[in-house]
Amino acid sequence: MSSMRTNYCGLVTEELLGQTVSLCGWVHRRRDHGSLIFIDLRDREGLVQVVCNPEQAEMFKVAEAVRNEYCLRVTGVVTARIGNTVNNNLKSGKIEIVASAVEVLNASVPVPFQLDDDNLSETTRLTHRVLDLRRPQMQNNLRLRYKVTMEVRKYLDNLGFIDIETPMLTKSTPEGARDYLVPSRVNAGNFFALPQSPQLFKQLLMVANFDRYYQITKCFRDEDLRADRQPEFTQIDCETSFLTEQEIRDLFEDMIRIVFKNTLDIDLPNPFPVMDFATAMGLYGSDKPDMRVKMAFTDLTEVMKDVEFKVFSGAANMTGGRVVGLRVPQGGTMPRSEIDAYTQFVGIYGAKGLAYIKVNEKAKGAEGLQSPIVKNLHADALAKIIELTGAEDGDLIFFGADKAKVVNDAIGALRVKIGHSDFGKKAGLFDDVWKPLWVVDFPMFDYDEESDRWTATHHPFTAPKDGHEDMLETNPGACIAKAYDMVLNGWELGGGSIRIHREEVQSKVFRALKIDAEEAQLKFGFLLDALQYGAPPHGGLAFGLDRIVTMMTGSDSIRDVIAFPKTQRAQCLLTNAPSEVDEKQLRELHIRLRNAEPKIV
Amino acid sequence: MSSMRTNYCGLVTEELLGQTVSLCGWVHRRRDHGSLIFIDLRDREGLVQVVCNPEQAEMFKVAEAVRNEYCLRVTGVVTARIGNTVNNNLKSGKIEIVASAVEVLNASVPVPFQLDDDNLSETTRLTHRVLDLRRPQMQNNLRLRYKVTMEVRKYLDNLGFIDIETPMLTKSTPEGARDYLVPSRVNAGNFFALPQSPQLFKQLLMVANFDRYYQITKCFRDEDLRADRQPEFTQIDCETSFLTEQEIRDLFEDMIRIVFKNTLDIDLPNPFPVMDFATAMGLYGSDKPDMRVKMAFTDLTEVMKDVEFKVFSGAANMTGGRVVGLRVPQGGTMPRSEIDAYTQFVGIYGAKGLAYIKVNEKAKGAEGLQSPIVKNLHADALAKIIELTGAEDGDLIFFGADKAKVVNDAIGALRVKIGHSDFGKKAGLFDDVWKPLWVVDFPMFDYDEESDRWTATHHPFTAPKDGHEDMLETNPGACIAKAYDMVLNGWELGGGSIRIHREEVQSKVFRALKIDAEEAQLKFGFLLDALQYGAPPHGGLAFGLDRIVTMMTGSDSIRDVIAFPKTQRAQCLLTNAPSEVDEKQLRELHIRLRNAEPKIV
Repeated sequence: MSSMRTNYCGLVTEELLGQTVSLCGWVHRRRDHGSLIFIDLRDREGLVQVVCNPEQAEMFKVAEAVRNEYCLRVTGVVTARIGNTVNNNLKSGKIEIVASAVEVLNASVPVPFQLDDDNLSETTRLTHRVLDLRRPQMQNNLRLRYKVTMEVRKYLDNLGFIDIETPMLTKSTPEGARDYLVPSRVNAGNFFALPQSPQLFKQLLMVANFDRYYQITKCFRDEDLRADRQPEFTQIDCETSFLTEQEIRDLFEDMIRIVFKNTLDIDLPNPFPVMDFATAMGLYGSDKPDMRVKMAFTDLTEVMKDVEFKVFSGAANMTGGRVVGLRVPQGGTMPRSEIDAYTQFVGIYGAKGLAYIKVNEKAKGAEGLQSPIVKNLHADALAKIIELTGAEDGDLIFFGADKAKVVNDAIGALRVKIGHSDFGKKAGLFDDVWKPLWVVDFPMFDYDEESDRWTATHHPFTAPKDGHEDMLETNPGACIAKAYDMVLNGWELGGGSIRIHREEVQSKVFRALKIDAEEAQLKFGFLLDALQYGAPPHGGLAFGLDRIVTMMTGSDSIRDVIAFPKTQRAQCLLTNAPSEVDEKQLRELHIRLRNAEPKIV
Repeated sequence: MSSMRTNYCGLVTEELLGQTVSLCGWVHRRRDHGSLIFIDLRDREGLVQVVCNPEQAEMFKVAEAVRNEYCLRVTGVVTARIGNTVNNNLKSGKIEIVASAVEVLNASVPVPFQLDDDNLSETTRLTHRVLDLRRPQMQNNLRLRYKVTMEVRKYLDNLGFIDIETPMLTKSTPEGARDYLVPSRVNAGNFFALPQSPQLFKQLLMVANFDRYYQITKCFRDEDLRADRQPEFTQIDCETSFLTEQEIRDLFEDMIRIVFKNTLDIDLPNPFPVMDFATAMGLYGSDKPDMRVKMAFTDLTEVMKDVEFKVFSGAANMTGGRVVGLRVPQGGTMPRSEIDAYTQFVGIYGAKGLAYIKVNEKAKGAEGLQSPIVKNLHADALAKIIELTGAEDGDLIFFGADKAKVVNDAIGALRVKIGHSDFGKKAGLFDDVWKPLWVVDFPMFDYDEESDRWTATHHPFTAPKDGHEDMLETNPGACIAKAYDMVLNGWELGGGSIRIHREEVQSKVFRALKIDAEEAQLKFGFLLDALQYGAPPHGGLAFGLDRIVTMMTGSDSIRDVIAFPKTQRAQCLLTNAPSEVDEKQLRELHIRLRNAEPKIV
């Protein structure tokens, strides 16, 4: 490989028996065994055992002095291990290196934790990130991440996509999430924004005849962080001209299938199932349902309109209200304590309670149903519940009744929670395989009660279904978008849409969103301009790379698939960014800190 | 290819004769030829000619209405062109499409300029960037850029390098260039900086045992822009452990050779010549000499110490002064006006004048030399000039005498200017081929007179040559670095170094740079920490992608190889970034504008 080493430690095998090799790596463990010293030497490919014999006094003296995480260069002969000293857990486990020379390339102070300690706090790990990254898990995660990106690049390259870089210093358009801003020194009082996505630029590239574009690029959103969010995240961003929605979905479905196959040898289903948004919300209360969970909602809104139980009938008769049942097969054995815990759980999502019925013996009618609410539901309603949910004796049915959003969020989360629970797994309610899904036919607009206006469900550049253009202003709630999300095991891997390529349709959407002509021109004038010069039909998709790799590696957090992530307080514990800066720097940027400003009486 | 089209316009050839094809593209030109309408339809692969016949009345009506840059879908039969209608400049020039259907996918308003107009102002081009990008030149530039990056990725992937993303939101370390800052909302009064390069992170990745890293990534410097600078630029950033300087250079020399071969079929020399920094400065006054120019300096400092001509003897005797001659073969015919122009030219670099001697007949001694200064140079000096420069009759010798920096800059630039001039090309002083070069053995430090201290020539993480560690503090000016630049035709393509991997050497360098322990800890504590945990010997290199592609495409400016560049005022004329932002946004970021602050008496 080089003048310093001939092989990677972890790749030395019995094929090299008898050969002299030079290896560079770190002392993973050092053991004094009577007269011999054993060193497990580690590099990025794994471990190899080095044996140091006291007959070579000088070398042995060096070996005696080394400690964990010293960086060494070792030369020696590849020798077979004998009998029970063979370690079948290691690729190099059938051999060891009988050292003839050991050189300390760099010493190490004692490490603050053992690299194989699996119970480190995240603060410890992020503060000592360099050591944390030496752990096999992090090495594997980042190498898998790389493999995923290379598979994506190869796949897209073969199809004629080309990677084109779009600007990092761009224009602030305060739609959607909060922008990260960058003050301009040359243009006093003005600011760049870091891109939330290359959305508009990739559309411009389509108008500019690049035909097929991709980019694996950083995006930025200054939002309050949750477990699966980072201030900067990486998007596999794609756009193409002259393809239909179906063709775009097929193309990227193949891509994901190939990525899973070529990196983890996982066969995803072919084709992915497709479900429209309305069905997904109806059955699972979610636009990214976890299809591994084998339970679904039964809509009972109609059934509950005339029952005595006010919680149900109130929700059933309310505008935008909804009543659903969630049948839990074999749930009748669930102890009261577990039901109470679920009641608390749905409270997180705004549910005011969690009604349930245990189906002891359905043939007996109300008699056979065990529940505080049975007496407030008339016989017809009870019969309908059993019929529509398909409940069998021994099952339990949970109910949600409230505004649709509360019901969907609460019972949707409950469905997943029960499915993933020990009970759910035992009861066969969880299918532990990869379950991808396309969710399609999203609404164009969501109604935002707070601001009393329609907002774009995806983004304002999403095209409506053919024929829906005329309803954009007259009946926005009925407009369906050519939008699609790829969902895997309850996570959104990516999403996209056919874009609007006609200026007059784009202007209509802006009007539907109450963005007037002047504001549209100010913020998106360059897009409206571009659309007038023969913009082609185009569409695309963006995948969240961090999330895909988190899923593929089975990591708890996207921080485990990012080399140098931020904490949930948006800080880098390694470098202490963000930090204070010189007054001179602020002056050059024509800004000052608010707390540093002079007080005015 | 898809339901909308079967082929790319530019790729339809006689192999498809008789077949019906569907094409999507833009109207490049439309010509009414008597009864027929010809449309040159353009997509990213090129042009194809479409013929519309009035016998198909409906289709013909559409064809009559289309104008330049309309986006069309055309279906028709591939038909041979006859006789002199064949166009050998086009890949599709032997055929035309006899249209059976023409569909307008999108109309276009009249374009503000013809796409094939080569005399557009940069302002026009950047304002209408989307149309500008449709021009074949820009299409080719960005596709070549992509090919270069894919070749780089394939090459590095084969060698086990892996792409690891480093943070965009990082710590401000006001060394080197000015940082772009990003105010933190969550951490009031603190700022992220956009990275000037991933230097420290890639070193940390080596300490973390990733062994071989690369990244093609954006870097940011808030400097005043020159023709070849952008606020954000793209670096091919590489780092490896356990390789020597020579091995690293070999590896990346191969990479560049393969990139040139596989994209442009250009054979660069193998191996690249290597020159040390001192020689480069001595012979060319530059650490990135343009080796195509076949002229070099002759150092005359010693020769001029005792001449009467004060300009020469003063510089020769000054500390840090230098006198050089630049022999211009056959320069004796140069008219006075051209010499005057060069005198003005070197003034840009601080030279106070430009002495010269025309060698009319050297056998005659001073008699045969034509110059205002000859009378102030004694015979010995004149003889030495002729001898050392190797001047022949008919040559001209220019002189530079001043502080070494002024001489190097001025006469170095003059050398290139003359070499590239019509005169230089006629006189055979310019070899029009690719001339790569490694410049090595840079000094560790430069002395900065203004601040009266030593600064790092490359950066403070560069390792000194073996044995030079002890001079870092005692004789910094004598320390040579393990640093190397790759130069091509007078441009620096990339540069790198072996890095310091021992904490005590790093601390010594900080002390040599007058960075005290406290400041070092504050700014670079995380690096010093990491070096203590068995950091491996490591080094690397970074290439400027924009510049490489600019050279490869023969572009005038790096703006021609960037899809959406900024102007020299750091503005995007397309989107009008940077722009003003809402007061609310500023308040959330805990900053205010200086010009908006209340006046205090």
